[in-house]
Amino acid sequence: MMETLCVDLPGRAYDIRIENKSLDRAGALCRDVLPRAERIILVTDSNAGPLYAPRVQKSLEASGFAVDVIELPAGEQTKCAEYLSRLWERFMDCGLTRSDAVVSLGGGVIGDLAGFAAATALRGVDFIQIPTTLLAQVDASVGGKVAIDLKAGKNLAGAFWQPKLVLIDPEVLSTLSDSDFSDGMAEVIKYGCIRDESFFAFLESRPSRAEIMEEIEHVLFTCCDIKRQVVMEDERDTGIRMILNFGHTLGHAYELAGNYETWTHGQAVAAGMVKAARLGTTLGVTPAGTAERIAALLQKFSLPTEISCGKEQYEAAIGLDKKGTGDRISLILLDQLGHAVAWKITKSEVLSLL
Amino acid sequence: MMETLCVDLPGRAYDIRIENKSLDRAGALCRDVLPRAERIILVTDSNAGPLYAPRVQKSLEASGFAVDVIELPAGEQTKCAEYLSRLWERFMDCGLTRSDAVVSLGGGVIGDLAGFAAATALRGVDFIQIPTTLLAQVDASVGGKVAIDLKAGKNLAGAFWQPKLVLIDPEVLSTLSDSDFSDGMAEVIKYGCIRDESFFAFLESRPSRAEIMEEIEHVLFTCCDIKRQVVMEDERDTGIRMILNFGHTLGHAYELAGNYETWTHGQAVAAGMVKAARLGTTLGVTPAGTAERIAALLQKFSLPTEISCGKEQYEAAIGLDKKGTGDRISLILLDQLGHAVAWKITKSEVLSLL
Repeated sequence: MMETLCVDLPGRAYDIRIENKSLDRAGALCRDVLPRAERIILVTDSNAGPLYAPRVQKSLEASGFAVDVIELPAGEQTKCAEYLSRLWERFMDCGLTRSDAVVSLGGGVIGDLAGFAAATALRGVDFIQIPTTLLAQVDASVGGKVAIDLKAGKNLAGAFWQPKLVLIDPEVLSTLSDSDFSDGMAEVIKYGCIRDESFFAFLESRPSRAEIMEEIEHVLFTCCDIKRQVVMEDERDTGIRMILNFGHTLGHAYELAGNYETWTHGQAVAAGMVKAARLGTTLGVTPAGTAERIAALLQKFSLPTEISCGKEQYEAAIGLDKKGTGDRISLILLDQLGHAVAWKITKSEVLSLL
Repeated sequence: MMETLCVDLPGRAYDIRIENKSLDRAGALCRDVLPRAERIILVTDSNAGPLYAPRVQKSLEASGFAVDVIELPAGEQTKCAEYLSRLWERFMDCGLTRSDAVVSLGGGVIGDLAGFAAATALRGVDFIQIPTTLLAQVDASVGGKVAIDLKAGKNLAGAFWQPKLVLIDPEVLSTLSDSDFSDGMAEVIKYGCIRDESFFAFLESRPSRAEIMEEIEHVLFTCCDIKRQVVMEDERDTGIRMILNFGHTLGHAYELAGNYETWTHGQAVAAGMVKAARLGTTLGVTPAGTAERIAALLQKFSLPTEISCGKEQYEAAIGLDKKGTGDRISLILLDQLGHAVAWKITKSEVLSLL
C-alpha cells in the first residue's frame, strides 16, 4: 500500500510519501526530485544509523549518488550549535555543492538539526527527510520547521526550510521501544483532538500498539494530512498553525518540572492535553467529560494524564519570565473534541486556574 | 540631500536610504518600518561602536525602543560559528521576541554576522542594516546575503534574509582610514566596469578621495542602484547576479596567496579585475586597452593592479580542489567597459592562460 500527500506551498510543493519498504527505494525516489544532484550527505543518529543507514546508502548509490554518511549521537543534546557547526564543516569536507542534497535518517532531533544545516550550508541546499520514529513521522518531518536548541530553550534558532520529499516507511516503527511508540501516540491522539473527532473515535476502537500497527498507513496518512493542511494555511506560524500546540504550553511546564529528563515530550504533551481540556471546561469552552475521554485513550498507551508541577514552571512555560511579551497569551483549547480554538486569556488568569 | 532606492522584491520590498546625519534619525526611520517592535538589539563592532553606537542608541530610545547594545571585536575572524552562537544566546538573554528586531552598525563583517543571527533567531526576526564602511555601503548591505565563514572558506554558511531597511549615512565615511576607503573604491570601480561606462568615466574625472567625497551621495546611489537592479533580477544568485563577482574569482586566489592577511578584499579584487580584463583580451572578449584603463583608475586610489600568485592558489580559487563541480566554470569578463558577461570556459583553459 502506498499513500502520497502533496504539501502544496507556492513554488515549493513537495510530497509526503508513505510506503512500506520505501527505505529500499530511497535512491529512485530521491532521484525523482533531485535530477541533477551528484552527491548526497546522509545524516543519521546512533539509533537509526546502524539499523537503516546501510540500506538507504545502498539504494542511493544504486541511483548514481555519491553518498557520505555522518552519524551523530542520538538524543536531544545533539541538537545544539556545536553539532550544527560540525555538520557545516563536515559538509564542506565532503565537497557539498549547491546542486547536491542532505538527507536526514532518524528521529526529530536529526531531522531538525540536519534540516537546519541544509537550510544554511551554502545558503541552502536541497533537503529530504526520512523520519524513523512515530513522533517524527507524524510531526517533526512535516511543516518545514528546522532548528537547534539554545541554553534558554528548545528550537530557539532555526529556519523555515521545506524538504523536497518526506519519505515515511512504516516498517521502521517495528524497531521502536514501546515507550518511543507511545511518545508518538501522544501526537497522534492530539490530531484527533484538534481536528478530527472520527479519527479520535477510530483510535479509541484500536487501543493498543498492535491494533494501531494493523492500520498504520491510515494513521500516518491522517496525521500528516491534518498537519499538511494546517501548514499550507499558515507556513510561517503566525496564525492557525498554533492549534498544533494543543497540550504543548502546559506540556512545556511539565518538561521543565522534570528538567527535560523525567518526562519525554510525548508524556508531557499527554498530561498537558488533559490539563488543557480541564481548564477549557472550567472556562466554559470545553464540554464536560472531554478531559476524561482523552485521558482514557492516553492511558491505553501508558501515557501519563497528570503530572505534578510547581507554580514556577507554569510561570516559565506561559512566559511570565520573558520580558516584553505582553500580558495576554493564546491558549489552545477544544470547543469540542475534534476542534481547537485559540483562546485569548491573561497570563494571570491562567495561573490562578492552574 | 537625501536619496531613497526601493529594492522591490515580491512581498519583501525595502528601502535603501542615503542621507547625511541619518544616524541621528535612526529611531524615527526604524519606527516607520517596525511599527510594533518593542526591543531592538544593536549589534556593532569595536571600530564603529565607540564612534557611533551611542548616537544610534539615543535616537532609537527616543522613538520608544528598548535597546540592548552588543559590541563584538572588529575583524573577519569574528564572522564565525562561535560568535554566531554567542549572539543567539545573547539575543535570548535580552528577551528578543518575534516582533522585535536586530540592527547592525558596522562594516560587512557585522552586517553579515548580525544578519545571519537575525535570519535564524526564533526562525527569523526583522533586520536593519546601518553600514559604516564604504565597502559595506556599496556592497555587503544590499542584496540580503548574510553568512559566516567556515574553515573551508568565506561565507559558506548563511541565508538570504532581506533587511527591512538599509540606512546609509555618508558622513560616517569621514572616519575611515585611507586604506579602508580605497578598499571600498575597488567595489565602486567594479560597478562602473560591469554595468555603467559613464559612471566609470565619472570616477576617472574625480580621481581622489576628496573629489569622490564631494559627490559621495551620487557615488553611493549609483552603486546601490546597480546592485539593487541585479539583485531584483536574481535574488537567489542563480544567474545574472554572478556578474557582481567580476574580479572576485581571481581576487580569491590573491587573498589565498596572502593567507587573507597580506591583501584586503578590495586590494585582491582590484588586481583580480585587471587580470580578468587581460584574460578577456587574450580570449578575444575584452577590447584591448580595457585592463590599462581600469588599472590607471585603481592606481589613483593606491590599489594594486597586479599580485603575484602561485598555480596552487589559482587552482583552489577556480575550484580544481573541489570534488564534483564539473569541469566548466563561468568566468565574469567584460565584453566592453561597462558591460559584463558570464563566459563559460574549462578550468584547465583558464589555468593555462594564467
